[in-house]
Amino acid sequence: MTERRLHLNAFLMGVGHHEAAWRHPETDPGLIADVRHYQELARIAERGRLDSVFLADGLALWGNVRHNALGGLEPLTLLAALAAVTEHVGLIATVSTTYNEPFHVARKFASLDHISGGRAGWNIVTSATEAEAHNFGIERPSHGDRYARATEFLEVVTKLWDSWEDGAILNDRAAGRYADTGRIHALDHVGTHFRVRGPLNTSRPPQGHPLLVQAGSSEDGKEFAARFAEAVFTAQQTLAEGQAFYTDLKSRLARYGRRPGELLVLPGISPIIGSTHEEALRLERELQDLIIPEYGVQQLSTMLGADLSGHPLDEPLPELPEPSDGQQSRFKLVTDLARRERLTLRQLIGRLAGGRGHRVVAGTPELIADQIQEWFTSGAADGFNIMPPVLPSGLADFVDHVVPELQARGLFRTEYEGRTLRQNYGLARPVSSFEQFEQKVSVAS
Amino acid sequence: MTERRLHLNAFLMGVGHHEAAWRHPETDPGLIADVRHYQELARIAERGRLDSVFLADGLALWGNVRHNALGGLEPLTLLAALAAVTEHVGLIATVSTTYNEPFHVARKFASLDHISGGRAGWNIVTSATEAEAHNFGIERPSHGDRYARATEFLEVVTKLWDSWEDGAILNDRAAGRYADTGRIHALDHVGTHFRVRGPLNTSRPPQGHPLLVQAGSSEDGKEFAARFAEAVFTAQQTLAEGQAFYTDLKSRLARYGRRPGELLVLPGISPIIGSTHEEALRLERELQDLIIPEYGVQQLSTMLGADLSGHPLDEPLPELPEPSDGQQSRFKLVTDLARRERLTLRQLIGRLAGGRGHRVVAGTPELIADQIQEWFTSGAADGFNIMPPVLPSGLADFVDHVVPELQARGLFRTEYEGRTLRQNYGLARPVSSFEQFEQKVSVAS
Repeated sequence: MTERRLHLNAFLMGVGHHEAAWRHPETDPGLIADVRHYQELARIAERGRLDSVFLADGLALWGNVRHNALGGLEPLTLLAALAAVTEHVGLIATVSTTYNEPFHVARKFASLDHISGGRAGWNIVTSATEAEAHNFGIERPSHGDRYARATEFLEVVTKLWDSWEDGAILNDRAAGRYADTGRIHALDHVGTHFRVRGPLNTSRPPQGHPLLVQAGSSEDGKEFAARFAEAVFTAQQTLAEGQAFYTDLKSRLARYGRRPGELLVLPGISPIIGSTHEEALRLERELQDLIIPEYGVQQLSTMLGADLSGHPLDEPLPELPEPSDGQQSRFKLVTDLARRERLTLRQLIGRLAGGRGHRVVAGTPELIADQIQEWFTSGAADGFNIMPPVLPSGLADFVDHVVPELQARGLFRTEYEGRTLRQNYGLARPVSSFEQFEQKVSVAS
Repeated sequence: MTERRLHLNAFLMGVGHHEAAWRHPETDPGLIADVRHYQELARIAERGRLDSVFLADGLALWGNVRHNALGGLEPLTLLAALAAVTEHVGLIATVSTTYNEPFHVARKFASLDHISGGRAGWNIVTSATEAEAHNFGIERPSHGDRYARATEFLEVVTKLWDSWEDGAILNDRAAGRYADTGRIHALDHVGTHFRVRGPLNTSRPPQGHPLLVQAGSSEDGKEFAARFAEAVFTAQQTLAEGQAFYTDLKSRLARYGRRPGELLVLPGISPIIGSTHEEALRLERELQDLIIPEYGVQQLSTMLGADLSGHPLDEPLPELPEPSDGQQSRFKLVTDLARRERLTLRQLIGRLAGGRGHRVVAGTPELIADQIQEWFTSGAADGFNIMPPVLPSGLADFVDHVVPELQARGLFRTEYEGRTLRQNYGLARPVSSFEQFEQKVSVAS
């Protein structure tokens, strides 16, 4: 076993990440809002000793529900129900800083962390779309404004988690003293976006802070990650791009007083697994044949910020202006891919259908493991965000065939190392900032 | 068995409703943020065939955590974890309309309703305290403003639940049509407090609308209840007061086109149960002896909107001005009680310690059942909000000793009638307002 440990997160997405998954006979789209489906997925992930499961989220009905199985469940609520039927696997929910209040978010994640015994993680997003803004009565804030709010949001939320120091609860029934109120702190935060008095009305989470996850790839996004994130999900198509992103992000940590090991980079990978290479390619072809071009064109139009509905499917992607706000990194990834491989619009849709810009690898468990190993040992990844094309079978195939291969190579755990998500990711538990402050004061005096 | 059915809700409050419960040897205050404690309570309620369990909530650290076990879990998150370990019992969470957005609230309750198979209920509150306002960066809105916002909030939330009609999901995999988008509707709501485009991105909840619950007793509160609520929790000290409240509330329904049976009135009762009367009184005395007067005075000061900390404990409650905004009904209940029974401050604190103004009844299971039966058959209650003084044992005593007595008298169910919370409460499932609109249009054309 190498010193460095590989980390694996299962990205749960309805009945699969391939946009045609819901039409494939392996899946049952009737389960899209059924908790038992997600409980089964969490149990499979735990059987494979995966670090965590993760739910993406948006605050509008995206995409076209005419042609895809949408309308599922809110992540935090769902993860609480998954916590009740699992013991080890981490539970990462996406929650927006643009359309929420820090007090609610701090409290809900603290609650999920208590409920799960220290397995909660927060994928922090700033919600880029207009559709979301229009469900909250505002015009879409600029990219810069969203990140400025997110930064202050994180300052407030982490202070709320810190507002009860670890030793605050005395539970002295004889003396009638439940808590040492000298160790429960108001914040009296007054900032540009928020005024929050505190303290939180939920005691300190078992992990101190639930794990902080992020996925932005813009300049603002990478700085935000370097400052706050402990795990980063990212879409990288080639090893060279993956290495460049990894090096770039890790190099930013020092300016926030952090070491490279304090942030894990987890590129996405959609593994299409077969017991032979031919079987994997057959599954991939079956899924590609179920693509609805009209849906793919809509998805691509949203990704690129341009209406492509009139463009002939068998001609190359036309020249398009870079979008002015947000989504630039996804725009670059997609247009680079189309140019590099000289794809027609139809071919491009096919390439994106599997993972919306994330890397798709079809092959045997050995080949998938080779790819993971190569990126892990070549400075491109600390682990992977696993995006099965169809669910639950694609996750079961990964857990039952790829994980044993990674274990046999000494790359992946055979038992969970710790009780909490932080412990399994190899990350430290933060001390309350109020406690640190008091220690500094007493040292100085 | 009478035609009318009694309904019972278990009000779960930390380790008990008595303010000294955490000091009593029957409880373990170390469980205040432990999901297993609440899972046990939900299982006990289900064993007793109770309609539902209910969690109160506030958005600030209320009371004095120095002298009480506070700092528990956020209700919606917690109830999702309880849904996973129960099958029948309803799950009612308190959520504020003043410090939330309708889109989030609609989505979280829709999710809880899916997760629980149609067992979600929402106790709608408008959050009266300054402490809460200061956690959200605003000054406390007036009572009238809070109810105006709540009314528009409910209009938006119910429309969001209606935005997917029941037949909207086709799941036609062969034709590539997941949903009939003609039956998924934007709201385009533009009002005083909210602009919400919709539709919701979670499909229609199993119950159509999760059960709507409310507990305000002000004039605004009762009108709001008459318009929207399907169950009302209320604090009533005497049978005559209970009858007056019941008659008043039911009489308001007609102006909203509703029948009396469409709203259930559930007064609170804190049953202190003993196998003999003496045993019940002994438990009551043990709890009273554990009261911390300083804590009681603080609680009373908050309830009455006046600082009583300098007032001698063994003199009567002084004359106090009625608070100008909110809390008037609780003020009247408490000052009436003090005058009627000529209580000293210390005695008043003792009387309120058990249920914060709710009725406390100590006695044998038969006596508790007599009280419930009397109110139920005398036009004061459709059921009760059960507030055990200590938890879990107080709930177990109620379920194991009072419930069988009520069943033997033909007052309470021996098996759940339906699968959903609405079915067990005997309430209809709402049709989507969009569906009704279209039917009206097609009839007219």
